[in-house]
Amino acid sequence: MLIRDFKIGEEITGYYLVKAKNIKTSSANKTYIDFTLQDISGEVNAKLWEAKGDVESQYNPGEIVKIMASVTQWQQTSQLKIIKIRGLLPEDEVDFSQFIPTAPIEAQTMLNEILAFVDEMKTEDVKRLVLALIEVYRKPLMYYPAAKSNHHAIKSGLLYHILRMLRSAKALGSVYKNINIDLVYAGVILHDIEKINEMDATEVGVVEGYTKEGQLLGHIIMGIKRIDQVSEKLGIDPEVSLLIQHMILTHHYEPEFGSPKKPLIPEGELLHYLDMIDARMYDMNKALKDVEPEQFTDPVFVLDRRKLYKSKYGTSEDY
Amino acid sequence: MLIRDFKIGEEITGYYLVKAKNIKTSSANKTYIDFTLQDISGEVNAKLWEAKGDVESQYNPGEIVKIMASVTQWQQTSQLKIIKIRGLLPEDEVDFSQFIPTAPIEAQTMLNEILAFVDEMKTEDVKRLVLALIEVYRKPLMYYPAAKSNHHAIKSGLLYHILRMLRSAKALGSVYKNINIDLVYAGVILHDIEKINEMDATEVGVVEGYTKEGQLLGHIIMGIKRIDQVSEKLGIDPEVSLLIQHMILTHHYEPEFGSPKKPLIPEGELLHYLDMIDARMYDMNKALKDVEPEQFTDPVFVLDRRKLYKSKYGTSEDY
Amino acid sequence: MLIRDFKIGEEITGYYLVKAKNIKTSSANKTYIDFTLQDISGEVNAKLWEAKGDVESQYNPGEIVKIMASVTQWQQTSQLKIIKIRGLLPEDEVDFSQFIPTAPIEAQTMLNEILAFVDEMKTEDVKRLVLALIEVYRKPLMYYPAAKSNHHAIKSGLLYHILRMLRSAKALGSVYKNINIDLVYAGVILHDIEKINEMDATEVGVVEGYTKEGQLLGHIIMGIKRIDQVSEKLGIDPEVSLLIQHMILTHHYEPEFGSPKKPLIPEGELLHYLDMIDARMYDMNKALKDVEPEQFTDPVFVLDRRKLYKSKYGTSEDY
Amino acid sequence: MLIRDFKIGEEITGYYLVKAKNIKTSSANKTYIDFTLQDISGEVNAKLWEAKGDVESQYNPGEIVKIMASVTQWQQTSQLKIIKIRGLLPEDEVDFSQFIPTAPIEAQTMLNEILAFVDEMKTEDVKRLVLALIEVYRKPLMYYPAAKSNHHAIKSGLLYHILRMLRSAKALGSVYKNINIDLVYAGVILHDIEKINEMDATEVGVVEGYTKEGQLLGHIIMGIKRIDQVSEKLGIDPEVSLLIQHMILTHHYEPEFGSPKKPLIPEGELLHYLDMIDARMYDMNKALKDVEPEQFTDPVFVLDRRKLYKSKYGTSEDY
Amino acid sequence: MLIRDFKIGEEITGYYLVKAKNIKTSSANKTYIDFTLQDISGEVNAKLWEAKGDVESQYNPGEIVKIMASVTQWQQTSQLKIIKIRGLLPEDEVDFSQFIPTAPIEAQTMLNEILAFVDEMKTEDVKRLVLALIEVYRKPLMYYPAAKSNHHAIKSGLLYHILRMLRSAKALGSVYKNINIDLVYAGVILHDIEKINEMDATEVGVVEGYTKEGQLLGHIIMGIKRIDQVSEKLGIDPEVSLLIQHMILTHHYEPEFGSPKKPLIPEGELLHYLDMIDARMYDMNKALKDVEPEQFTDPVFVLDRRKLYKSKYGTSEDY
Amino acid sequence: MLIRDFKIGEEITGYYLVKAKNIKTSSANKTYIDFTLQDISGEVNAKLWEAKGDVESQYNPGEIVKIMASVTQWQQTSQLKIIKIRGLLPEDEVDFSQFIPTAPIEAQTMLNEILAFVDEMKTEDVKRLVLALIEVYRKPLMYYPAAKSNHHAIKSGLLYHILRMLRSAKALGSVYKNINIDLVYAGVILHDIEKINEMDATEVGVVEGYTKEGQLLGHIIMGIKRIDQVSEKLGIDPEVSLLIQHMILTHHYEPEFGSPKKPLIPEGELLHYLDMIDARMYDMNKALKDVEPEQFTDPVFVLDRRKLYKSKYGTSEDY
Repeated sequence: MLIRDFKIGEEITGYYLVKAKNIKTSSANKTYIDFTLQDISGEVNAKLWEAKGDVESQYNPGEIVKIMASVTQWQQTSQLKIIKIRGLLPEDEVDFSQFIPTAPIEAQTMLNEILAFVDEMKTEDVKRLVLALIEVYRKPLMYYPAAKSNHHAIKSGLLYHILRMLRSAKALGSVYKNINIDLVYAGVILHDIEKINEMDATEVGVVEGYTKEGQLLGHIIMGIKRIDQVSEKLGIDPEVSLLIQHMILTHHYEPEFGSPKKPLIPEGELLHYLDMIDARMYDMNKALKDVEPEQFTDPVFVLDRRKLYKSKYGTSEDY
Repeated sequence: MLIRDFKIGEEITGYYLVKAKNIKTSSANKTYIDFTLQDISGEVNAKLWEAKGDVESQYNPGEIVKIMASVTQWQQTSQLKIIKIRGLLPEDEVDFSQFIPTAPIEAQTMLNEILAFVDEMKTEDVKRLVLALIEVYRKPLMYYPAAKSNHHAIKSGLLYHILRMLRSAKALGSVYKNINIDLVYAGVILHDIEKINEMDATEVGVVEGYTKEGQLLGHIIMGIKRIDQVSEKLGIDPEVSLLIQHMILTHHYEPEFGSPKKPLIPEGELLHYLDMIDARMYDMNKALKDVEPEQFTDPVFVLDRRKLYKSKYGTSEDY
Repeated sequence: MLIRDFKIGEEITGYYLVKAKNIKTSSANKTYIDFTLQDISGEVNAKLWEAKGDVESQYNPGEIVKIMASVTQWQQTSQLKIIKIRGLLPEDEVDFSQFIPTAPIEAQTMLNEILAFVDEMKTEDVKRLVLALIEVYRKPLMYYPAAKSNHHAIKSGLLYHILRMLRSAKALGSVYKNINIDLVYAGVILHDIEKINEMDATEVGVVEGYTKEGQLLGHIIMGIKRIDQVSEKLGIDPEVSLLIQHMILTHHYEPEFGSPKKPLIPEGELLHYLDMIDARMYDMNKALKDVEPEQFTDPVFVLDRRKLYKSKYGTSEDY
Repeated sequence: MLIRDFKIGEEITGYYLVKAKNIKTSSANKTYIDFTLQDISGEVNAKLWEAKGDVESQYNPGEIVKIMASVTQWQQTSQLKIIKIRGLLPEDEVDFSQFIPTAPIEAQTMLNEILAFVDEMKTEDVKRLVLALIEVYRKPLMYYPAAKSNHHAIKSGLLYHILRMLRSAKALGSVYKNINIDLVYAGVILHDIEKINEMDATEVGVVEGYTKEGQLLGHIIMGIKRIDQVSEKLGIDPEVSLLIQHMILTHHYEPEFGSPKKPLIPEGELLHYLDMIDARMYDMNKALKDVEPEQFTDPVFVLDRRKLYKSKYGTSEDY
Repeated sequence: MLIRDFKIGEEITGYYLVKAKNIKTSSANKTYIDFTLQDISGEVNAKLWEAKGDVESQYNPGEIVKIMASVTQWQQTSQLKIIKIRGLLPEDEVDFSQFIPTAPIEAQTMLNEILAFVDEMKTEDVKRLVLALIEVYRKPLMYYPAAKSNHHAIKSGLLYHILRMLRSAKALGSVYKNINIDLVYAGVILHDIEKINEMDATEVGVVEGYTKEGQLLGHIIMGIKRIDQVSEKLGIDPEVSLLIQHMILTHHYEPEFGSPKKPLIPEGELLHYLDMIDARMYDMNKALKDVEPEQFTDPVFVLDRRKLYKSKYGTSEDY
Repeated sequence: MLIRDFKIGEEITGYYLVKAKNIKTSSANKTYIDFTLQDISGEVNAKLWEAKGDVESQYNPGEIVKIMASVTQWQQTSQLKIIKIRGLLPEDEVDFSQFIPTAPIEAQTMLNEILAFVDEMKTEDVKRLVLALIEVYRKPLMYYPAAKSNHHAIKSGLLYHILRMLRSAKALGSVYKNINIDLVYAGVILHDIEKINEMDATEVGVVEGYTKEGQLLGHIIMGIKRIDQVSEKLGIDPEVSLLIQHMILTHHYEPEFGSPKKPLIPEGELLHYLDMIDARMYDMNKALKDVEPEQFTDPVFVLDRRKLYKSKYGTSEDY
């Protein structure tokens, strides 16, 4: 049964991915285990009150467990009280992709479409630089999410974020003729690329934390340094390298969000708005997709605690 | 000779539109006339030091004058010292459109394209409401600018602003499926429509000031009231009317820019970004179009005093 | 016994109004009921651990229950552990007004005094408009609170807020002669009037939530639209209607509090301060009235978390 | 002729007070004198181009001069070009009060009314403290303005500000019973009293600058110190002294306006709003009193550059 | 065993200081005692579930108790479940200084060093004023902390804060010659001196709360008043007194941190930075001293929730 | 005669450096030259009304001219009206250093002292990195100012800024033991080093503008990239390189001043305060050094428009 469909008072049985596990001591001074379990539909907290056997070495994050549990309530959300738990047996046939929220398009397909955009580029040095950098990150790019907990925090979320922004860029490029579309494409592909080194993520697309360099410098500064290094190695026109570094530096737009300067070229200005639109459409769709028409959501933290409205005329996508 | 091409020290002759006229007294206690003259390429200040005859009744704003003048300099910009001046004679053959910056597409053509977007709408009540409102404003819509001095402050600028936003909306509508495109189109067409009653503009597209209601309420509140009235008269589904009012209320996004609430529907969120992108692309193109490659502009007031950069790879449009 | 007088460790018996009721599951996986009970002196949380019988259909919000309970402590406040509970029996003689905090003046008396203020108006169109609008809201006006949880969140609180502001307006009108007192009276009476349609309140004066239009537009915009409609129907001088709409638009004064413009007429400026003073005197009196002299209150959320001081020379009112 | 009535192009003759005088050198390298002249209706800039004789020692600030001059225009305002100038002769009969904007009530009358308010006080120590402090400042209180250039920057403006606030305090004291009116009266009388030592003002009510202590500490801190000293000397109840010091400390309400703490007693909260209302009514009346109905003012600096509106129903006082 | 070294699951025995004690009622309606215990290494929460005997009168804050307890876990931190508890017996030999975090230098030694700085002063009136004030506060100065919970919240913390700032002042005084070092020393010694009357602290250096005057005025205003009084009594040059009052007024630098004015003399500017540096070095050292190299701390509340980094090259002091 | 000593009305003769030169047209339509002249004591505007000969090619910025001129006044400051002007003749004996404000210590002496600090470093990789970078910038370091118009905008100002900060760092390093002094020294030497490539400065120490990379990225980002490149080339321990990059990134402390992150190590925190102190002491000394005791300065733009006070006990340095 999908986590999204749990009802308080029921007893459920099923396979779930262990996302987090903590060994704790209760007020009655007993050891228990506090899990976060996950499937494709969401997450749930689960308590194993009677923790027997070698609980320390078993059921670790990244493993799949089979449980029987009753659905209880704790402060407005459901919680599981685990009755039985076991690890996977050889005869269990489970499909890992059922447990991990993933971009709705297959990673290789997305990469191919992105490469097709690169193929359209007419400015040779922009193309060479972008291709070289895609090569550098090709492996992690296939599964990295675009964030730890906000928009596109799903497997291959970064690729999906890039792809949708490229599609939008192409669309707007047909309306606004005062931009060099190659620079916009390059900015889109590279703007968040060093998130791959800023965050530690497992191959299932879950971010476990931030790296040392990520905390001390951040992905914007790290991206600028990387472009600088690769450009120098490849002998890219310094103006190309500088413009792309400037676009990365400015794409968060406001100092308090990490951009000490604002865009001084229209391609940078557009990049910022493409990024905002894609993030906001993602977050709004996610918040609204399970809401009934003419109802409001709970306050959405990442959208300034707005309570969104699903209008009678509203629609949603399924990612 | 176009104002843009004046060089300090030259003597010029030509026809120009009087944009503003002030009668002043010099430090030597003599009366002189201070003009702002305009043609399609820009504006220039001009002094008529020896004002003879009935200067009060002649050469008023909106008239075209023929002048001979020398180009002088005052605080970094050129200024004219008028040597001869006269009004239009019957034999002068001047084309008014040479003096007024105008949207690069003909007004009727733009309106037709906008109506074609409306024609695509599938939600009957949205379509009826939008068509009724276009009818209300049809005449001033043909020439109204979109602002007094910022983006699209040109003849038919409001139509041009709407049209480009509609094109972008359509393009993004093909990328993001979680929006009702009819609502977005309606929001785009109506978001600034009460600027027509907020500002006083002449038929040549020059804003002369703000109306009483414009100053006391502003075009956002005025637009909401108008939609409310027309919806009630036409028996529009209250949900449609409410959603469009909400989009108008929220499209400036931040309280300090006039929106006391933020968008609670994705269509409103997108409307805000479409508006921003169109305004910024317009302002950036205007600031950069006469700049040499690899040069910076002066600080642009409306873009937070940024000094924009015209890159070697940059391009511009001619509006 | 009044809730305000509960002492930890005691056992109490009495009648209380159910303000909220939630069915929950304990960590021991048992169902229990979590009540908020209320009387005229305040509110208290109460747990019914042994919930027997048809707990779902009984003891709902708005009903009065008789309970026996012990007073326990949870995080600095008292809490009830219910021992016995039953609904009202025919023989119980309870006076509903004992359970609901209510304005200290009877609603009809307040309305009469307000109508006497209207009677003093000399500007005919202001008077007609105000009387017509009082007529529209007359029924809910008798019991609506002025807020969900802040100042005047009591039965008939809106009337009480209006009345005290009118009294202050009259008093200040005798000091400041540069205001049209009719406009100030009209602003006072109408400034929050659409809270009646922004919030859902029961007839006992408890706000249950916000309406759809309330969330998408808010009472300020709703009030402007309503005045616009009624003014048009009655043929009110447009200047009168516009000024009152402007006063409503600006009475929150700051954009971040919902007013996109500031008052441009002295009557609007004064309205803002009358509103502030009445709210602040109410909130301060409420926070201080049960405090001993020379003591400080806990931080008061609605007053920027200030800890107010009850001076030796301080005094309080009993509302 | 009153300065307010000057018309550009006319020649005028009359007596005016010298408010400021600067000796300057023109671009043609000649010495000229730049005056600011004043009468009861306003101020005007005046140039004496042909400065002959001992211009350094004559026509100093505070003196009255008789001039003949032509009214010219400089940047939207009128300016005088002086043709003849002389000092007062024994036979000139001029009334100084014609040249100095003054509160509309006679100083002694205002002081008497203020003392009558003090007489109503029931808390003996508050009364003693206030009377002692009035005694300290009695002489300068008769003519001090309440500010250098904003509200009540007129002769006896401080008395007038105090008096109107006391009247309002009394009026509101009849509406709100949770305040000790004696404390409010004391706060009103003393809140700005050390402006007398913060600013240097002449006996004609013109502020010439700030004192050293005024710049290094400011009137709020200076007032607290003064109340502390006098209270100790008179053996005032420390609670009384502390509360009044607290009211002075907090009456500007926001840190960025000079109050590091917010009021913790209702009397302090009310004092703040009484101060705001009196200042705003004064400034709005001043800005609007010479405006035609249905017109807007120019941006008023001290009111956040708002352009106020004089409605058809508006009214003004003559101070 | 030191609190810092507790390990979850162990059973410990030892002497600890009672820092706080609350009598509470459990969800099972039983009375229990909630302690905060402390030793030199830190604090821990401890529950006495089976509270027998006269728990109200025993084990009060400031007393030392001997306990046997098991170390449990609650929300990421350890907590004690008390098994046995008793007060001190005559035969227990405990050293109070083992329980109270104290400045790393003995109080009298610090005071002597501070007096040596005063001895260096060349401006007689500065020296007299400072000595007189040290005399006033000599007793509490020996044990007062510098804050309730932030930097230097330890016994004799205020002395330690002053001393380190004096050492830094002397050091910087040898680099910057545009300051009067006597004024800087005076500012350092007196800037927080009225914290002694703003906060209530026990002789073991624990702050129990704020005084009435502390809450209504704050230590900055109180310090200014005190300096004013003492200066007047001693006949100090008013310029000296005014400058030191100004330094105290401005040393928090920003209005929102309590300084309504900014420093107008370089000595005040330097005082602010000396204060910041000492507080920040203290807080950073405290947060980092128990962290392993190449690890990050948890978010530090008092440092804007930064997660500090202990570098491979970092070092710490032992206070 | 030094510019500082000009008196209005006098006629002066002397040698001055041309800092800026503009050819303009007067209102009478004549060409004139507008100079900014400079000597060691300050700057002055000078007009050459009768510009004869090849004025375009002569008297350019960087040249020294001999002039005779009368001192006139324009808007509160003095201005020169040039009577005679000529360029330098072979027989003129002028010392360039008389015309250029320069750090008070000789550049080579400062560099030597800085190198002595480096010599003290114990962390080998820090030392190697710093020495390598000093080598890169050695030539421009000898004359570069530290800013375009604010603190240390003098010849060799950057060296002087570094040197004073190093002296302070050493002094504070003896007070605070929780810092690695080598890292602080490295941060001080390198924090502004890329100002050399951000600004274009002549060898006389005058900044003429910002470079392309300076405007698009800024010296903070440029410095990080440079340290990254050099570290990689030299095989510096990545932790050393990362820490120094982090210190440069964070030394402006607030996002709105260009630091997207705050310091996470105490060495970075201290660097920020060392930078602030040195800048503020410089700016305050400059503003106060020519002020009489017990007087205030005009508002100082770079110090938030504060009017500083020169106290009776104040002192100044002569740079």
